[in-house]
Amino acid sequence: MMLKEAAIAAMGGSLLFFLLIRNRVHPAHRLAVTISSIVVAIAFYHYLRIFDSWSDAFTFVDGTYVQDGLPFNEGYRYVDWLLTVPLLLAELVIVLKLAKSTTRSLLIRLTIAAVAMIALGYPGEIAAADSTTRTVFGVLSTIPFIYILYVLFVELGRSLGRQQPGVRKLLDGLRYLLLATWGVYPLAYMAPSVINDAATAEVARQVGYSIADVLAKPLFGLLVLAIALAKSRDEVAPQDDDLHRELEEFEDA
Amino acid sequence: MMLKEAAIAAMGGSLLFFLLIRNRVHPAHRLAVTISSIVVAIAFYHYLRIFDSWSDAFTFVDGTYVQDGLPFNEGYRYVDWLLTVPLLLAELVIVLKLAKSTTRSLLIRLTIAAVAMIALGYPGEIAAADSTTRTVFGVLSTIPFIYILYVLFVELGRSLGRQQPGVRKLLDGLRYLLLATWGVYPLAYMAPSVINDAATAEVARQVGYSIADVLAKPLFGLLVLAIALAKSRDEVAPQDDDLHRELEEFEDA
Repeated sequence: MMLKEAAIAAMGGSLLFFLLIRNRVHPAHRLAVTISSIVVAIAFYHYLRIFDSWSDAFTFVDGTYVQDGLPFNEGYRYVDWLLTVPLLLAELVIVLKLAKSTTRSLLIRLTIAAVAMIALGYPGEIAAADSTTRTVFGVLSTIPFIYILYVLFVELGRSLGRQQPGVRKLLDGLRYLLLATWGVYPLAYMAPSVINDAATAEVARQVGYSIADVLAKPLFGLLVLAIALAKSRDEVAPQDDDLHRELEEFEDA
Repeated sequence: MMLKEAAIAAMGGSLLFFLLIRNRVHPAHRLAVTISSIVVAIAFYHYLRIFDSWSDAFTFVDGTYVQDGLPFNEGYRYVDWLLTVPLLLAELVIVLKLAKSTTRSLLIRLTIAAVAMIALGYPGEIAAADSTTRTVFGVLSTIPFIYILYVLFVELGRSLGRQQPGVRKLLDGLRYLLLATWGVYPLAYMAPSVINDAATAEVARQVGYSIADVLAKPLFGLLVLAIALAKSRDEVAPQDDDLHRELEEFEDA
């Protein structure tokens, strides 16, 4: 419950930050930061809903929370992911500034894979803990997940060489952040099958999803912002001291 | 329920996007994007209302939702459409930038037809599944619908030749998107007459309306934005490299 609260605050806070900071990014690199704002805005809204759904589902009885109200609606998370995961992948591609045709092809393929991954995960998520349904959809959903990782680490790896060194390091960080945070989701998904006590498993799953969401959205957005700012610097003509100072000031901060 | 949730997030997310991006559109073409923002803002608000009305109408009993609360108010959708459908048609006409007199005549005729279409649909929508009222108003409402299609495909078709090729392709996409998404509404309207089980029919209707709304509003708005940006490019003097680059970047995405 407290973690959901922290997620609401992290999403709302980073939304405000991205909105306030985006004017400092050179217009040529601003779109990725705009998308970050939309991602955390959608997540902020959904965490409010998730929080309410959780409150409705549990009642405090005799010193402990028992689930006796409405069912907790895990669907909110999946609706959130269905919208935000393709957007996260899109901002990663957009901030790279590859050739037009490459960008388009990457956006189309990554969006389809992301939607497939999440749509295939949901039927398993709402299935019983040790059911075949849960296992089958878990496996099916892993296929597009692996495809996305292949695109990010093998296909995109080739284009990284053409980025300037500072940006390359940030981009590497971005890909590993994505790998590390997205790796939490399958673990959280498996919690009900691995942990015997249903209540403990549910808590483990919620904790896993919430932590992964905060790292995969606001933190991911911050890294994209850093890349956009590093690239903005190259766009600035040397005589434009004002903007230079402004950018330096931000990076110092 | 989840689809309504997705519609809320899609409307809210695209509202934020249209607001953040509209400065990138040349002032001469910005009005259409402004209207897009208003359309999704109105829809965002109405989906929040629809969501609440749906929650109030259904109660969770013995592991399943039963409708025993307040009646679900389908009126929100019709109020929404009464405002947003004329606006969607208006932005389509405005982004074309036709002669002043042609624009005025199109706006007046399309607005009247759109209001008639929705006002005539509502008495049928709230009538019983197989009643004559439902059929009669369904047919009456189809007349202005066909008139709108006539204007868009026959009358406007003539003016498309004068648009530049890139814009023409986008405009074609826009008209077909409108045809495809608006085609869902009569099908959803007919669901209660075609599907025997009342609950299934209700779900089919809600799913149809929600999907069509998301395609007809945020996606329609994105296409209008693409047209406005393509036209903005022509407005830019060749020496204005900065704005040029900014626009290119967006189109790359």
